[in-house]
Amino acid sequence: MRRLNSSSADFPAQLAALLAFETAQNPEVDVAVARILADVKARGDAAVVEYTNRFDGLNASSMAELELSRAELEAAYQRLSTTQREALEAAAARVRRYHEQQVQHSWQYTEDDGTVLGQAVTPLDRVGLYVPGGKASYPSSVLMNAIPAKVAGVGEIIVVVPTPRGERNDLVLAAAYIAGVDRAFTIGGAQAVAALAYGTATIPQVDKVTGPGNQYVAAAKRAVFGVVGIDMVAGPSEILVICDGQTDPDWIAMDLFSQAEHDEIAQSILLCPDATYLEQVAASIAKLLPSMPRRDIIAQSLANRGALIQVRDLDDAAEIASQIAAEHLELSVVDPWALQAKIRHAGAFFLGRFASEALGDYCAGPNHVLPTSRTARFASPLGVYDFQKRSSLIYVSEAGAQTLGRIASVLAHGEGLPAHAKSAEYRLKDQA
Amino acid sequence: MRRLNSSSADFPAQLAALLAFETAQNPEVDVAVARILADVKARGDAAVVEYTNRFDGLNASSMAELELSRAELEAAYQRLSTTQREALEAAAARVRRYHEQQVQHSWQYTEDDGTVLGQAVTPLDRVGLYVPGGKASYPSSVLMNAIPAKVAGVGEIIVVVPTPRGERNDLVLAAAYIAGVDRAFTIGGAQAVAALAYGTATIPQVDKVTGPGNQYVAAAKRAVFGVVGIDMVAGPSEILVICDGQTDPDWIAMDLFSQAEHDEIAQSILLCPDATYLEQVAASIAKLLPSMPRRDIIAQSLANRGALIQVRDLDDAAEIASQIAAEHLELSVVDPWALQAKIRHAGAFFLGRFASEALGDYCAGPNHVLPTSRTARFASPLGVYDFQKRSSLIYVSEAGAQTLGRIASVLAHGEGLPAHAKSAEYRLKDQA
Repeated sequence: MRRLNSSSADFPAQLAALLAFETAQNPEVDVAVARILADVKARGDAAVVEYTNRFDGLNASSMAELELSRAELEAAYQRLSTTQREALEAAAARVRRYHEQQVQHSWQYTEDDGTVLGQAVTPLDRVGLYVPGGKASYPSSVLMNAIPAKVAGVGEIIVVVPTPRGERNDLVLAAAYIAGVDRAFTIGGAQAVAALAYGTATIPQVDKVTGPGNQYVAAAKRAVFGVVGIDMVAGPSEILVICDGQTDPDWIAMDLFSQAEHDEIAQSILLCPDATYLEQVAASIAKLLPSMPRRDIIAQSLANRGALIQVRDLDDAAEIASQIAAEHLELSVVDPWALQAKIRHAGAFFLGRFASEALGDYCAGPNHVLPTSRTARFASPLGVYDFQKRSSLIYVSEAGAQTLGRIASVLAHGEGLPAHAKSAEYRLKDQA
Repeated sequence: MRRLNSSSADFPAQLAALLAFETAQNPEVDVAVARILADVKARGDAAVVEYTNRFDGLNASSMAELELSRAELEAAYQRLSTTQREALEAAAARVRRYHEQQVQHSWQYTEDDGTVLGQAVTPLDRVGLYVPGGKASYPSSVLMNAIPAKVAGVGEIIVVVPTPRGERNDLVLAAAYIAGVDRAFTIGGAQAVAALAYGTATIPQVDKVTGPGNQYVAAAKRAVFGVVGIDMVAGPSEILVICDGQTDPDWIAMDLFSQAEHDEIAQSILLCPDATYLEQVAASIAKLLPSMPRRDIIAQSLANRGALIQVRDLDDAAEIASQIAAEHLELSVVDPWALQAKIRHAGAFFLGRFASEALGDYCAGPNHVLPTSRTARFASPLGVYDFQKRSSLIYVSEAGAQTLGRIASVLAHGEGLPAHAKSAEYRLKDQA
C-alpha cells in the first residue's frame, strides 16, 4: 500500500496521480449501445425480448413473461428470514424518515402592485429504476433509489432488474416490495434503459432513469439523457478516513477494507498526522487481510489505489480532504464537528469513531448514492430533490406590467429583439 | 402556419410530429471539439491563445491580453445611457430578490440515542459562465447566470465571452459588472470551455460551467461533464399560449412572434377552444408580420414549427399542455391560477393577460434559463440550487452504533460484503 507524506515537495503531484482515474468512454461500447437503443426504439417489446433472451439466457416469448407481479415481489418478501425482513424494514423506515426532510415545497410572494412570483415544486410523473443483476445485485440500492422517489410523490415507479439464467434475488425483490415499487420487469442492459426511455407497448415511457449499472448501462444512460433525465454516472467507490490516531487501528483497517472489497478499482485512503499510528493501521491490515473472504479484491484495490498519508496536522488533513472531495469521508477524531466545518467537499461525512461507512451504506438514513471522482465539488447525494422539479410562476398585474414593461422594452431593444419589446409595450397603458 | 384540431382522430400523431425535434449530435463537431479539448488540456494558455486568434480573428500574444479587468467592465457600464443602465440595474435587483428565495439551508436532527443526521448545503467554490459573442450576445443571460451563482455564495465567478474581430458588447460587459463577476476573458468556443474545465496557468479550473452557446460549445460542455458540472444543454426556445379567446389578438400574435424571432427553429403554439378567435389571431399575424424587423425569421419559424390548435375546452388545453411540457407557457385566461393547477409540466408559467413572456425574459425576477424540448417533465429552471451542493452528515453515537450495526451486519452479509459487516460489528459492545 502506498505511503505518502504531505510535507514532501512532490506531494501535490503524487496526490494528483493517486486520484487520477481514466473515465474515458469506450467507443465500441457506445456503438453497440447505439444499435440496441435504435432497435428498441423502432421495434419495442419484440426487440427487448430478443436481447433479453440472447444476453440473459432466457427463453421468453413475450414481454408479459418478463413482468414480475406485486404478488411475486411479496412472495419473495415472505420467503426471507424474519431477521432479514426486519433488517430491510428497519433500514427502509430510517431511509424514509431522513428523506422526508428533503421534500421541497412550492412558494410564492406578492409584490405591492399585485404581481405574484413563485415556484411550483411537483413530483415527476413516472421514473425507472435500474437494478443490476448478478454479483453486484444490492437490495440496499433498491431502497436508496426507490424511497426518495416515493417520498417525492412520483406517480409510478418501475424497476428493471436482469435475471441472468433466470436467477432471481429474493432480497432485491423484497426491497422493491417494501419500497412500494409499482411495476417490475426482469430485463437489463441497454435494452432495459431504452425501453424505459422510449417506452414500448408494455413498458410505459418514464421521465427519468436512475440507478447503477455496468458500462453498457452507463453508456445507454448517457445516450438517452435529454429524452429522459438521468442521475449521475458513478465512478469507482471511494473512502477517505481522517484519524487523529486515537481510534482502534483494527476499526480503521476494516473501514478501508469495506470500500476496497467492492472492486479492484475502489479507493481507500487514510490521512493521519501520527506516523506511529499509520504503522499500526498497516499492521492491522496485514493481520486482518488473510481472514477476509474477499481478500484478493481488497489486496488489489489497496495496492492499486490505496494510500496511507502522513499529514502535518488535522488542518492539513482538512485541506487535502477538500481537494480529494471524497464520496465517503470518515472523521474519526475527538471533535469531528469542528473538523467537518473546515472541509468544503465530500459526498457524505461520517462523524465520530462509531460512524463507520457501512452504517451509512445500509441504514443510517442518508442516501448511499453519492458523488464520486471529485464530483462532490459540484454534485450532491441522490435525494428527493432528484424526483421533484420546479416551474416558475409569474403572475403580472396590470400595474406590474407598467413597471416591468418599460424595463423589458429597453433591454429587448438593446438586444435587438423588437418583437420582445413590442409584446411588453402592448401591455403599457400609455404606449411609447 | 399549421392549423390543428385536438378532436381529430390523428391529432396525437400530428402533435408528436409537431414536437419532434432531432437533437442528434454531430459526429464531426464532436471530433473537432475533442481535438481542441485535448490540446488545451495539454498546452494550456498557449493553445487557448492560438485558437482564439484563429477563430475570432484576434492577434493576442498572451492570455493576459485576453483578460478584461474590473475597470474595463466598469468603463463599459459607465458608457451606457442612463436609461439602459437603470433598466439593467432594475432587472438585476428583481432577479436577485427572486433568487434569494431559492437559497437552501443546512439542516440536521438528533435521534433519541444521540445520533445526528443532516445535510450540509454549501456553495460551489468557483464557476465559469459562458456568454456567447456576436449576434446572440445577451446581457440578460449574464444576469440570469451570474446572479444565482452570486446569491448562492459562489467564491469566484469567471466569465468567458468571445469578441470576434475585437468587437465588445458594452451591455454584456456592464451586466457582468453589475452581477459582480470576478474575472472575465475574451475567449469563446470549445477552447474556452476547455480552459474553464481543466484550468490553465492563467485561468483557474472551475467546478461548473453554465451558459448557452453554439453547437461547439454544447459539444464541449457534454464532453467535459463529469470533470466539471454543467447546466442543461438547451434546445430551441418554445412558447405555448393557452387563451380563452378574450385577450387582444394582437397581443397574442406578438407573444408568438417574440419567441419566433429568436431563430428559425423556435416554436410558437397557441391553444384555444374558440375557432373564431384563432382566425382573429391568424389575421393579426398577417397584419403585424410585415412591420417586424425580424419578419423573415419569424415567418420561417411559424411556418416550420408553429401551430394554431383548436381544443375542446380549457381542460383539454391543460392536458395537451402537460404533454407538451413547454419551456414558456402563457395562460391568457380569466382564471389563470385554476388552469395552472391542472397542468403538470412547464418551465415557467406566465399567468394572466398582462404576463407576456418578454417580461419574464428580462426582469420579472425568475430565471430565463428554462428546460426546453419537453425536459420540463424532469428538469427545472436554472437557479441558486444549481450553484449549491449538498453533503450528508452522519454522526453516530455509541448507542446508535449498536442499533445500526446489527441492521447493517444482516444486510451486508445478505449482499455478500463481509468487510462491510465486520466494520459495523467492530462497533458493537457485545460482538456477535
